[in-house]
Amino acid sequence: MDNLLIIKIGGNIVDDATKLAAFLKDFVALPGAKILVHGGGKVATKIGAQLGIASKYVDGRRITDAATIDLVTMVYAGLINKKMVAALQSMGCNALGVTGADANLVPAIKRAVKEIDYGFVGDVKSEQLHTQTWQVLLNNGLVLIVAPITHDEQGQLLNTNADTMAQEIAKALSKFYNVSLLYSFEKAGVLLDVNDDASVVKQLGRDYYQQLKTEGKIFAGMIPKLDNAFAAIAAGVSRVIIGPAEALPALTNGTAGTTITNE
Amino acid sequence: MDNLLIIKIGGNIVDDATKLAAFLKDFVALPGAKILVHGGGKVATKIGAQLGIASKYVDGRRITDAATIDLVTMVYAGLINKKMVAALQSMGCNALGVTGADANLVPAIKRAVKEIDYGFVGDVKSEQLHTQTWQVLLNNGLVLIVAPITHDEQGQLLNTNADTMAQEIAKALSKFYNVSLLYSFEKAGVLLDVNDDASVVKQLGRDYYQQLKTEGKIFAGMIPKLDNAFAAIAAGVSRVIIGPAEALPALTNGTAGTTITNE
Repeated sequence: MDNLLIIKIGGNIVDDATKLAAFLKDFVALPGAKILVHGGGKVATKIGAQLGIASKYVDGRRITDAATIDLVTMVYAGLINKKMVAALQSMGCNALGVTGADANLVPAIKRAVKEIDYGFVGDVKSEQLHTQTWQVLLNNGLVLIVAPITHDEQGQLLNTNADTMAQEIAKALSKFYNVSLLYSFEKAGVLLDVNDDASVVKQLGRDYYQQLKTEGKIFAGMIPKLDNAFAAIAAGVSRVIIGPAEALPALTNGTAGTTITNE
Repeated sequence: MDNLLIIKIGGNIVDDATKLAAFLKDFVALPGAKILVHGGGKVATKIGAQLGIASKYVDGRRITDAATIDLVTMVYAGLINKKMVAALQSMGCNALGVTGADANLVPAIKRAVKEIDYGFVGDVKSEQLHTQTWQVLLNNGLVLIVAPITHDEQGQLLNTNADTMAQEIAKALSKFYNVSLLYSFEKAGVLLDVNDDASVVKQLGRDYYQQLKTEGKIFAGMIPKLDNAFAAIAAGVSRVIIGPAEALPALTNGTAGTTITNE
């Protein structure tokens, strides 16, 4: 199987023009089939404020009302996505920007209202991604730049978590490619000592992960992230890499960050 | 050669939710390969006003400054394009939204500053469209929804006239397809009497056009439009249709609007 690299970057890269330019340059230099999933960053909040669209939260969870889905569609799928596409094209990378609605690449379902009504938030319909279209695009040398917007196949656009989007794409395409999934992270990787970047765990297998959890060395916010990473591995993704996007070449050759495998 | 239908719609359709929904339904029903080029409509002006971005004009020509190119990228490539894609997908049409920057489909050059500095406006590099990528996408059953944004291949997004965009795509693809180019128009077509919709000219060839111009029956704003239509025909486009998008099925079977051919 051919290799496929799927990278998710967040606000710490998207919001910083210098870091973004450096990241995109490194990204272009990586060989093989590639997908870049980007989050939104602060620009949506800033433009939303100018438009009088306040970020809404219920119990700490962001709510996507009608004005907000329009806002994130404009900013994520329009401004951020197309600026990135133009920058990549200028460096000879044949980037094509998409959302999950385009070519029905990522069908989703509006999250059911239980305790909280999240509004126009989409949960990806796992197993229903249009893998044939993904393959046509990738196998024709296109580098896909994915904004985290999906749709319900009934005409409604939906806001979807970018980490989830990257993971679902990685899982679906792992049937056809040897997929590496890279999560850009502000720290050097999984750390044994949160205050010491030198304590990064270079290789993390399932057994070692259980051991570190038992020893209390991995805790709090890292646990759901790593559980998701192991779920991706269990679903067929070859490896998950967690580390700073600033060190992209080193992350992909295993000399920086944490590489999570099934071993 | 396979048939390819390229339709350009403007603000009178894009701004009217009822007309747009009806148009998209008719569009989905048309057989064969299809491309839809959309203009912006009033929504960009409205959102621009909310963001404090005033429309700027010099000698009646719109100027695209840095804030405006960001605005139209958000609104055209983000909001309008993706809402249309989601609506089409809900009707079983495999729509993929693109700009000219995506996959470098439509390379352009920033308009040179002469008497007027138009700002970030792109003139399409004719003969340099990436026809192979267009064909890969179309031949895989994708229906392309095109926002009138291009790029200079050096990282800068550019605002491009949607009529021009449709025409340049039609010309470039006429080497590979039997192209019909349809311009949505507010009137019934080319009229012998501007006040009488029943006076529509059903077929307009080059000789008849010259005759009507000589007789003073076609004048003013219609002349550059028709000159462009005949230029498209001369460049290989099979036919250009001018008429109201509301009558889409009749326009495409020749029973409404004006069909311009080389005869």
